[in-house]
Amino acid sequence: MPKRSIGAIPYLYPVPIVLVGATVEGRPNYATVGDCAIMGIRPPLVAISLGETAFTTRGICKVGSFSVNVPTTEMLSLVDYFGTVSGKDVDKSALVESIPGKIPDVPLLAVCPVNLECRVMEECTVEHRHVFVAEVVEAHVDEEYVSEAAGRPRIAPLPELDPILYALDNTYYSVGKPIGTGYREAERFPRRRP
Amino acid sequence: MPKRSIGAIPYLYPVPIVLVGATVEGRPNYATVGDCAIMGIRPPLVAISLGETAFTTRGICKVGSFSVNVPTTEMLSLVDYFGTVSGKDVDKSALVESIPGKIPDVPLLAVCPVNLECRVMEECTVEHRHVFVAEVVEAHVDEEYVSEAAGRPRIAPLPELDPILYALDNTYYSVGKPIGTGYREAERFPRRRP
Repeated sequence: MPKRSIGAIPYLYPVPIVLVGATVEGRPNYATVGDCAIMGIRPPLVAISLGETAFTTRGICKVGSFSVNVPTTEMLSLVDYFGTVSGKDVDKSALVESIPGKIPDVPLLAVCPVNLECRVMEECTVEHRHVFVAEVVEAHVDEEYVSEAAGRPRIAPLPELDPILYALDNTYYSVGKPIGTGYREAERFPRRRP
Repeated sequence: MPKRSIGAIPYLYPVPIVLVGATVEGRPNYATVGDCAIMGIRPPLVAISLGETAFTTRGICKVGSFSVNVPTTEMLSLVDYFGTVSGKDVDKSALVESIPGKIPDVPLLAVCPVNLECRVMEECTVEHRHVFVAEVVEAHVDEEYVSEAAGRPRIAPLPELDPILYALDNTYYSVGKPIGTGYREAERFPRRRP
């Protein structure tokens, strides 16, 4: 298949959309972010990237912690709105319920089914982007999505959690169907080219 | 909704699954990675995380560059297989076709519809995890997924590109349906709580 070079575009797709929470100027603020990823399970790490001058960046740099809140597709209009306005101009905390976690001054967005409390471990800047690598200190999940299996919490499958995805075609997507199990699909791989 | 604290788990979902390519010990190698994200559009940045002692990490540290190759669900068994074996033990380059890009010693995985060539800008380690923040130097897309729109390349929508998603329920998922347009859904947000 011939390839076309389309330029220096980070065309990775899709990405999960989250709301990054931080206390800024004494009040909770939430920024819609697609630049967020798991960076490890043990230790439990995430990375986020924000604009160097963003309102949320100011809060994270001061407190050293933030929250990652995973929304549902029902929240799409709120999520999109929180990505179009800055906390400099709008008090977003007046529009949503914030709840405290373990870390002081890290607001959790109550309406999201999953909330991660994160403490910054490393950070760097590339031009005007500020990248934070952070340890997850605690994850909180709505009771309705948690059950017990073999003495450990079992979280509902993704179609129930109903996350929002986004891609650089500027389109939001829902998650699709399960198509396989980790570390079990290789059995079907012939291991030799036909 | 009451919350349950489930421990220090980076429960972000879903994540896009990619194959990270690098030249290691003189041959192309590909590692299946879920720890990958966009970290900015301008400048075009991605981040990946690998084990400090992983075969791929050795190659990236030596060359200073790598590729991010986005697979399709048709490739699931190969992708899963490449996540279960190390290039230390298996010559993965013998199982797939590699093509060169712009950067010397950065192999691109031909069968993937999208390939990103990336140059390391910043890196850090947290315990045994090695995080690379890299600039995307060039993106390559299979011709069949590119069209022209207003003089710019237009990439096919996600259901056509058919990426593989993964979550910590150890399940692979396909992408679902489009549910909205970026920066257009806020109009539906009432901006006041009912």
